[in-house]
Amino acid sequence: MNQCKLNNLLKTFYEEDIGFGDLTTESIFTKKDYGVGVFVAKNKGVFCGVDIIKQGFKLLAEEISVDIHVEDGIDVKTGDKIATVEGPVIHLLAGERVILNLIQRMSGIATITQEAVVKANSTHTKICDTRKTTPGLRMLEKYAVTCGGGFNHRFGLFDAVMIKDNHIAASGGIEKAVDRVRKKLGHTVKIEVETECQEDVLAAVRAKADIIMFDNRTPEEILKLRQLVPSGIVTEASGGISMNNVADYAATGVDYISLGFITHSAKALDISLNIEA
Amino acid sequence: MNQCKLNNLLKTFYEEDIGFGDLTTESIFTKKDYGVGVFVAKNKGVFCGVDIIKQGFKLLAEEISVDIHVEDGIDVKTGDKIATVEGPVIHLLAGERVILNLIQRMSGIATITQEAVVKANSTHTKICDTRKTTPGLRMLEKYAVTCGGGFNHRFGLFDAVMIKDNHIAASGGIEKAVDRVRKKLGHTVKIEVETECQEDVLAAVRAKADIIMFDNRTPEEILKLRQLVPSGIVTEASGGISMNNVADYAATGVDYISLGFITHSAKALDISLNIEA
Amino acid sequence: MNQCKLNNLLKTFYEEDIGFGDLTTESIFTKKDYGVGVFVAKNKGVFCGVDIIKQGFKLLAEEISVDIHVEDGIDVKTGDKIATVEGPVIHLLAGERVILNLIQRMSGIATITQEAVVKANSTHTKICDTRKTTPGLRMLEKYAVTCGGGFNHRFGLFDAVMIKDNHIAASGGIEKAVDRVRKKLGHTVKIEVETECQEDVLAAVRAKADIIMFDNRTPEEILKLRQLVPSGIVTEASGGISMNNVADYAATGVDYISLGFITHSAKALDISLNIEA
Amino acid sequence: MNQCKLNNLLKTFYEEDIGFGDLTTESIFTKKDYGVGVFVAKNKGVFCGVDIIKQGFKLLAEEISVDIHVEDGIDVKTGDKIATVEGPVIHLLAGERVILNLIQRMSGIATITQEAVVKANSTHTKICDTRKTTPGLRMLEKYAVTCGGGFNHRFGLFDAVMIKDNHIAASGGIEKAVDRVRKKLGHTVKIEVETECQEDVLAAVRAKADIIMFDNRTPEEILKLRQLVPSGIVTEASGGISMNNVADYAATGVDYISLGFITHSAKALDISLNIEA
Amino acid sequence: MNQCKLNNLLKTFYEEDIGFGDLTTESIFTKKDYGVGVFVAKNKGVFCGVDIIKQGFKLLAEEISVDIHVEDGIDVKTGDKIATVEGPVIHLLAGERVILNLIQRMSGIATITQEAVVKANSTHTKICDTRKTTPGLRMLEKYAVTCGGGFNHRFGLFDAVMIKDNHIAASGGIEKAVDRVRKKLGHTVKIEVETECQEDVLAAVRAKADIIMFDNRTPEEILKLRQLVPSGIVTEASGGISMNNVADYAATGVDYISLGFITHSAKALDISLNIEA
Amino acid sequence: MNQCKLNNLLKTFYEEDIGFGDLTTESIFTKKDYGVGVFVAKNKGVFCGVDIIKQGFKLLAEEISVDIHVEDGIDVKTGDKIATVEGPVIHLLAGERVILNLIQRMSGIATITQEAVVKANSTHTKICDTRKTTPGLRMLEKYAVTCGGGFNHRFGLFDAVMIKDNHIAASGGIEKAVDRVRKKLGHTVKIEVETECQEDVLAAVRAKADIIMFDNRTPEEILKLRQLVPSGIVTEASGGISMNNVADYAATGVDYISLGFITHSAKALDISLNIEA
Repeated sequence: MNQCKLNNLLKTFYEEDIGFGDLTTESIFTKKDYGVGVFVAKNKGVFCGVDIIKQGFKLLAEEISVDIHVEDGIDVKTGDKIATVEGPVIHLLAGERVILNLIQRMSGIATITQEAVVKANSTHTKICDTRKTTPGLRMLEKYAVTCGGGFNHRFGLFDAVMIKDNHIAASGGIEKAVDRVRKKLGHTVKIEVETECQEDVLAAVRAKADIIMFDNRTPEEILKLRQLVPSGIVTEASGGISMNNVADYAATGVDYISLGFITHSAKALDISLNIEA
Repeated sequence: MNQCKLNNLLKTFYEEDIGFGDLTTESIFTKKDYGVGVFVAKNKGVFCGVDIIKQGFKLLAEEISVDIHVEDGIDVKTGDKIATVEGPVIHLLAGERVILNLIQRMSGIATITQEAVVKANSTHTKICDTRKTTPGLRMLEKYAVTCGGGFNHRFGLFDAVMIKDNHIAASGGIEKAVDRVRKKLGHTVKIEVETECQEDVLAAVRAKADIIMFDNRTPEEILKLRQLVPSGIVTEASGGISMNNVADYAATGVDYISLGFITHSAKALDISLNIEA
Repeated sequence: MNQCKLNNLLKTFYEEDIGFGDLTTESIFTKKDYGVGVFVAKNKGVFCGVDIIKQGFKLLAEEISVDIHVEDGIDVKTGDKIATVEGPVIHLLAGERVILNLIQRMSGIATITQEAVVKANSTHTKICDTRKTTPGLRMLEKYAVTCGGGFNHRFGLFDAVMIKDNHIAASGGIEKAVDRVRKKLGHTVKIEVETECQEDVLAAVRAKADIIMFDNRTPEEILKLRQLVPSGIVTEASGGISMNNVADYAATGVDYISLGFITHSAKALDISLNIEA
Repeated sequence: MNQCKLNNLLKTFYEEDIGFGDLTTESIFTKKDYGVGVFVAKNKGVFCGVDIIKQGFKLLAEEISVDIHVEDGIDVKTGDKIATVEGPVIHLLAGERVILNLIQRMSGIATITQEAVVKANSTHTKICDTRKTTPGLRMLEKYAVTCGGGFNHRFGLFDAVMIKDNHIAASGGIEKAVDRVRKKLGHTVKIEVETECQEDVLAAVRAKADIIMFDNRTPEEILKLRQLVPSGIVTEASGGISMNNVADYAATGVDYISLGFITHSAKALDISLNIEA
Repeated sequence: MNQCKLNNLLKTFYEEDIGFGDLTTESIFTKKDYGVGVFVAKNKGVFCGVDIIKQGFKLLAEEISVDIHVEDGIDVKTGDKIATVEGPVIHLLAGERVILNLIQRMSGIATITQEAVVKANSTHTKICDTRKTTPGLRMLEKYAVTCGGGFNHRFGLFDAVMIKDNHIAASGGIEKAVDRVRKKLGHTVKIEVETECQEDVLAAVRAKADIIMFDNRTPEEILKLRQLVPSGIVTEASGGISMNNVADYAATGVDYISLGFITHSAKALDISLNIEA
Repeated sequence: MNQCKLNNLLKTFYEEDIGFGDLTTESIFTKKDYGVGVFVAKNKGVFCGVDIIKQGFKLLAEEISVDIHVEDGIDVKTGDKIATVEGPVIHLLAGERVILNLIQRMSGIATITQEAVVKANSTHTKICDTRKTTPGLRMLEKYAVTCGGGFNHRFGLFDAVMIKDNHIAASGGIEKAVDRVRKKLGHTVKIEVETECQEDVLAAVRAKADIIMFDNRTPEEILKLRQLVPSGIVTEASGGISMNNVADYAATGVDYISLGFITHSAKALDISLNIEA
């Protein structure tokens, strides 16, 4: 994770929440009032957010000390102390909401990802994310997915090729689409093709796609389609997969299952910051 | 909603998703290939996101036309056409993911807010949000809450006072805390006090707080505490309230119920963009 | 005052004044030449600007030490030493003009505000500012007003409601305007109504406005209008009030007097920085 | 004036004033409500701000039409119509305060500059500004000075050399200081030297400074010092010059008189925007 | 190429060159003076820069018309007209230098890339770039490489893996390094390994690297090493390759040759803008 | 050089190169792995880039220590150690490419500038740069020119006047053009006029231009034209000057020779960073 970029994000978020200043706290506390705050898990899940806590408070005041008790990716249960911070109350309270909002969301994503990994119950099939992340938070949310045991799909439109129906139609078929892309792009870029039927898969195999995605297929369909794909080409199942049927999809032996809900519909993990001034 | 600010947000989000460019689409389409896209609801809920669609595509290419079929705050059901866009495919595909991610999230928030309003089933008690929003998206998420029939609590630390336990402890009591704040702040700022017991409520009443919040209380407790508050002071219930018990809280006659989950744990509403190139 | 935001402002101002570099100083001094600078008041007034001096130099070079002798809001007279700074001359000279421009303006505002407070000569009526501040400097100028003994009116269009003639006309009357606003906005926002006659005031009272402003009225008119307003609703006089008649307005017993000239036409307080290299 | 830069400034100022949105206006008007606004002078002075009005409204909504009746630098008197704008009320009201704050300040500066030019009453001596401008507004304030008949001194530390006491002391004299600068800087940069006595002036002449400033001297002193300066070297009086004695300074025949008060202590020119919705 | 990002870049570059304004042109021309400008090649080479000309002038003034005569990637010779622009002279002159600086550089890169492609004289081996681009201009320079017939290597540290000596040493060998990376990264990322000897290459083959780079090897060495690599793994030669020996490297049958000098040491192509006011 | 501005540039460049993170290094190293890196010259030339190395690493991690062995402007030969850095490998590798790209380019410019100075072989004539710099890097490239013994021409359109053919034509002659500019601009701005023949030069002399440029003239022509210019007006040769004929131009006794190729076509100086983890 790029720390420079993280700092930029945090500054933007503080601007949003603090604005001209914290009317309440600045009216009551002075810069000399110190306090201690403890982050505590209020539910069980996978924690994610060490850098948020460290950089978040450092940005507000260099003199805040941060002591981390739980590393990213570690399971926590209700009551677990995650981190202890100490410094001017005025800054502890100013940073509280932004930092909690971020680590609760990131931990929520790590937690649901881990749950999906457990549900998939496979030594072979891996769980990965999609681009269905919160605009502005992709770096943080994709990091959270890895803390829950998942893997990252491409980060954006710029770091891998995904050939979809519109591209195929415009090119006159999968092989022609892959060909057009290959003529323009360099060797460091992987090419993934969305397929929906046997014909598509065979065309993608002939086109030597790096990754073949089975889009919105049932586990039964995937079981058959997968057999058309030689080893050396990665397979991925995507679309219509939920916590309930992820095991069925994993059982097909597909290499990756990509899940949008682990980022776009994760429930925040409840974490509180108890401050003693 | 400040349209200048919305434009800024959208530019940031495009930077995140598009980066140096859309490797796939730019290899296959030219700027002269036009297409038509239709946004369609894939589930029932409350739509929210007209400005996102309009400004989102306008930012990418002035020549994209946008025809809106469903206004913000309107109920949609599976299959409803929300909007039709027409223009260069290259730009339709470039904007697709960011715009979908935003309107799915905003519609998800509007939908869950409406559900909470319906569950509360009260002509008196209103549902409102908190600061537990996604960092960077507060303006959009708070707008979505209003589209679902909810109301906005303060936008940040800068536009209203919220006196919590730390402030009370540091000041030596609720009345002293309110007093300190009043001595510093002007007449356009409202003062809310968090209370947990009868003693707190009576102190807040004596301090002439504008709003008294009952923090993490049961409906039964609130019923009693509310009677200590004279008309003219607004009451609010907060903490530990879920879709299951929101009706019980509303039945206490409290003026506002603030719910964190409508923003921090809303499920995205499924909306797709079908593009014909 | 949000220190992150202050840092951002200072960086922008240095960019404006220093640009590619300080042609003169960088040609003559090296980074190793140290110096001592003393900020001295060249006139009497109220000082404001501690954070500007501290953060301003810290941004340019961590090794500059800053020793503050006069806190914000304190009266100074000609010759008073305000602060002593020590560090590389190249940075002391680079920061000089921006810092002086800011603290002279802020101290000028604090000084004229205090003068208005003294002139008003009231234990009840408070002096407050308006949105007639310098674009880009609102946070700093509103802070300066509080250092002179004044209070802040709303910070922008986003943190309080002000219903003016256009809103009233478009709504079909004051009560309808207040009603429209109340239906949309949450409980943390105060509503102020501009009034010009008895009829307006009575309508605003019926609408239960939080604040009633008497717009461009004489002290005599305000004396009468104020009696129509029950306690519990704050009153404010605004428009056409100068240093000469502020006492007459305060004598009406109005709660607040808002003055545009304390920010838009304040004279800078003369402060110099004497550097010994 | 760089229009790109002006747009950037205006966006920042709207962000400051409008924030998340205009609570009042957006609750009452819809985007379809149109209105007409007229900018009217409420006092006499020199108008400055055409680009602010044009770009300011264009940024908020392309469909606002702007009709300018008074160009920059033209005298206005109470009641003069300056410009007429027509478009969505919601945007007219959103832009009102920022635009008024800017044009009132710029017109105030143009007005006081013109007054100084008139007071100086010289066909030879020119009035110029300093770097004592409002941080963030230098481009606009320096432009306003030219609209009042004044001239611009350097824009920052980067576009001309100004050798002051610290530079002279560190170099071991004026000639050595000029020499050091000349060895490092190119031929497109002018060198100005601050002088306080006959010795200084003679040294600056020997050093072939481009501009010699008489710093904090009386008119009598300047009369003598000026005779030491050969034609070809520009002379400038600076420091301790007010509206009362500017004519005495001009009478010395000095080429330029630089005045800090025309930017740091100008009184805003009263201009109003009357909107009919 | 992301047009939003291009606009951002252009704004930054105008800020750098135009600053507060064009002192010369704004003193002589008014906004109403129109002119016509023709971009003409003053040397032979490959043109690249259509979007720079189009967006560059559009940003300065919407009313400038741009007529493109030569598309990106097309050969030009001395005297060829590249584009004709028409609009306010003040804006044509303001944009001239920035636009010329960009298109001259981009065309220079396209030209030298084409030269390398021609020199390599291979139907199999492709020329590609590196990360040795000008900081801030990577998107533009990598685009220019493709216009000269070259291909893009990775855009940054974020879109492909490159395992170098430090990574290998720290991991305890190539296979362990590849393994560590694979355990953390998803399936859309390619892994390239730098190799220097037979042992390295064999290890990289065993590790199933996607790309094997022969780092600073002679053509003779590469000829041998390449035979160790099964088809299906891409090979790349890098380091110490110049215009003089690129054909020798291509003759080894390697898949890609990456050249730093095509971006870091390209000579600008001479292009002028002749303006008739 | 403005260090605040340098920091901003570096942040932008890291964003471009590092993006979401360094996939390779972050998969292999932890934050606790330390290393030592040595910058070594791989060719002879003039080094330039001390501040880049210092600030560049400091921005990534405060704990990196930087030991500089060669100051800016000093000649280096192959094998010379330029600087030693020590700190977390993860940050050393993250900063490597951006820092190398910058110092190689800057050192390349310093080297070619020094070469031109040596070739000119004159105690009188100085070498200077133009505005033909890389967009976004002007501050750094112009600084590099001074490290090679050259001088800076104007930084942009805002800090000096350059009257060219379009300005002359529109004004009706050189004297009228200079006159128009003088009527608008202050005394701190120098005026340069481009001339092509005797008539032009005489007109520029009559107009009392500060600098007269001989545009695209042969050394023979300049020898004659120069004699028309009285001492006190600076002369400059520009256009069509290369490393081959710069001595001929210097022999004309012109004061300055401006060279575009020292910035737009400099070859990067080869410098490597050898890291031991």
